Amino acid sequence: MPIKTNDPERKSWLPVPPASDFPIQNIPFGVFLTRDDIITIGTRIGNHAIDLGALHQLGYFNGIPLTEDIFLQDTLNDFISDGKKTWRLVRDRISKIFEKRNPELRDNEEHKKIVLFTLDEVEMQLPVQIGDYTDFYSSKEHATNIGKMFRNPENALLPNWLHLPVGYHGRSSSIVPSGTPIRRPMGQILPKGSDLPKFSPSNMVDFELEMAFITTDANALGEPISVDEAEDYIFGMVLFNDWSARDIQKWEYVPLGPFLAKNFASSISPWIVTLDALEPFRIESPDQNPKPLPYLLQTGRKSFDINLEVDITPENSTPTTVTRTNFKYMYWTMAQQLAHHTVNGCKVNSGDLMGSGTISGPNPESYGSMLELAWQGTKPIKLKDGSLRKAIEDHDTVTLRGYCENKGVRIGFGEVSTKLLPVFQSKKK
Amino acid sequence: MPIKTNDPERKSWLPVPPASDFPIQNIPFGVFLTRDDIITIGTRIGNHAIDLGALHQLGYFNGIPLTEDIFLQDTLNDFISDGKKTWRLVRDRISKIFEKRNPELRDNEEHKKIVLFTLDEVEMQLPVQIGDYTDFYSSKEHATNIGKMFRNPENALLPNWLHLPVGYHGRSSSIVPSGTPIRRPMGQILPKGSDLPKFSPSNMVDFELEMAFITTDANALGEPISVDEAEDYIFGMVLFNDWSARDIQKWEYVPLGPFLAKNFASSISPWIVTLDALEPFRIESPDQNPKPLPYLLQTGRKSFDINLEVDITPENSTPTTVTRTNFKYMYWTMAQQLAHHTVNGCKVNSGDLMGSGTISGPNPESYGSMLELAWQGTKPIKLKDGSLRKAIEDHDTVTLRGYCENKGVRIGFGEVSTKLLPVFQSKKK
Repeated sequence: MPIKTNDPERKSWLPVPPASDFPIQNIPFGVFLTRDDIITIGTRIGNHAIDLGALHQLGYFNGIPLTEDIFLQDTLNDFISDGKKTWRLVRDRISKIFEKRNPELRDNEEHKKIVLFTLDEVEMQLPVQIGDYTDFYSSKEHATNIGKMFRNPENALLPNWLHLPVGYHGRSSSIVPSGTPIRRPMGQILPKGSDLPKFSPSNMVDFELEMAFITTDANALGEPISVDEAEDYIFGMVLFNDWSARDIQKWEYVPLGPFLAKNFASSISPWIVTLDALEPFRIESPDQNPKPLPYLLQTGRKSFDINLEVDITPENSTPTTVTRTNFKYMYWTMAQQLAHHTVNGCKVNSGDLMGSGTISGPNPESYGSMLELAWQGTKPIKLKDGSLRKAIEDHDTVTLRGYCENKGVRIGFGEVSTKLLPVFQSKKK
Repeated sequence: MPIKTNDPERKSWLPVPPASDFPIQNIPFGVFLTRDDIITIGTRIGNHAIDLGALHQLGYFNGIPLTEDIFLQDTLNDFISDGKKTWRLVRDRISKIFEKRNPELRDNEEHKKIVLFTLDEVEMQLPVQIGDYTDFYSSKEHATNIGKMFRNPENALLPNWLHLPVGYHGRSSSIVPSGTPIRRPMGQILPKGSDLPKFSPSNMVDFELEMAFITTDANALGEPISVDEAEDYIFGMVLFNDWSARDIQKWEYVPLGPFLAKNFASSISPWIVTLDALEPFRIESPDQNPKPLPYLLQTGRKSFDINLEVDITPENSTPTTVTRTNFKYMYWTMAQQLAHHTVNGCKVNSGDLMGSGTISGPNPESYGSMLELAWQGTKPIKLKDGSLRKAIEDHDTVTLRGYCENKGVRIGFGEVSTKLLPVFQSKKK
């Protein structure tokens, strides 16, 4: 356990503004393009991005078994493949280098010029090459809300829901980092009262407030990962906006699940926060009744107390926070999700991403999608500028934020912020 | 149009046995490990594998704009990214090098020793790194059979089926090449008459006879590919066995589609046959009624006449061919599938794989899965050794084969052959 690294008293010689998501206890991992147009792997303290590739070349990771180019890559996949032991050695070393009493880098102006960047000097990239992306559906509140709206209010949860973490495969190619604008999708929609679909822009573009975890190579094809071992194969977490087109989804999704309603875009926050950084924020997950089958039975605190919120910002306007919820409400934990995912021998690789599913809390103010917040359009949300929303409008920016906080330490995820552009117009005639 | 390359009269100086799938008109692309433990990209004529990396180093591709290491890679992704023009130049050049009157390589014993391998000297690999895998559900006969069995026999097709090529995302990480054995999956199954699932080996492991196409980089995120352009982004096709566990599927698949029932394994044939090689075998696809929406309206012959068959071979026994069907029965074409997949702006990359869905023909002898052939277990299939099958048993080998034939030329896919091993037993206590 990296006790020292998580010590609330620990301070960095780099400035950390109050309420920053990135104190020295965080040490997230990301990939960025520098002012010199070089791609490197880095971390962040306060408002500084730190070039780990350069730090490694300068010898600051001596003694840790790392290949020379491990941080000089455009994805974290190889570093993640090195495994938990190595992640911890690197995390502890970074914590040591930036600890306020350590003069090694602090007092080396030449080295600091090479490794330190202000945030406006870097451009964050997708942190991993995502081989496979799976999305779960693990919030009981969300699944219940959807069941009430679309199926039977008396019996909202489907029969399998309490027995297994329902999940499905998503599209990796359409996952983009925070800041990348996306387009309103075109698609087939069934007009109300008609049995002939029309081809139209989606009129019900929605966000889904999720978190996602990123795995390392977990198993050989055919071999399961136990629920007890599962967390050893989780590198860290990001914020995840699983963009959805509800009208396209409604027409296409039976019987094989959502497809074009989801794969036009998903957005992630660029800094991966490790499970080690989240260690002090462990919390019990909700009681599970009926008791899961033995392969899903977990012990200990396997959830995390992560505050989550979503802003909608219309073009040239101010943000309105439309929901506040918490990751701790998830019924199924990440360990259970990964154990379930591999119980049939499905292979999990470094850089795979697994989304939680929409995270809705118990109250109408804590729902994780516009579909639920505006209850299928029956309760439009009023924004600060007086405009109403049943869905996301063109030029709206949707921003997800998340952070943990206790004992005066705040560990956060930064944000994933995405603007919705109008439908694509071909330049061709 | 590469007329000469497809000329039925064209012969190679390499021997091509009668009924070989790989005459000089085929020129498939694959990746193999050589006797010297080197991975290279290659092609095949008759029973010879040809090292394209070595051919390129020896100068045989001079004049074609190729990077030096384009064939010295462990996947075809970069070559596929080079685009259709380059694929054709390389295909035409290979055809020229191996044409029987061309002495250039034919009479160079030293070079032949370097570039030619017999099949037992090479080990075929997965030909591409599959970024995303999508599976469609485009055989009307198959969808109707499933609808009859599981839903309403009077109204077997779901309302959306005739309007769009229904598809869903699959798992790339579990796709293996022919020859890789797979394991019977464990999973949750709902026993008949119970409402409590049990954890058990699947008792209904099934094959699905499919073909799949492999794409090149087709679009930027947010931009669609038109149905008329779609084939320009298809590199070629393979045989595809989409292994399925019917009992796991039945319990898990509502509402988000199949997950663990599919992602334990899918198997592909190792040689990618290009659309150019399939050109002489174009055929009309079935009439579409109702007429599809304009973005799915195609002109010309967009299907291919490909004979398909499946053998089951019990351990130490002889093969029984359990079905014979044809790719031409597919209701939705590959061009329509790709246009639909990208109409919302979903990004398609080099090496993405898109499966057809189970290819069932009109007669009970032409169904593409055991589920249909044995009609939910009510009509067990009798194998040559006298044993009966409702599903695939441990140690059975399932082999898919496919080929086109006319004017005395046979272009084939070889086979995808996979043995089902018993469930994984952990060595740990």
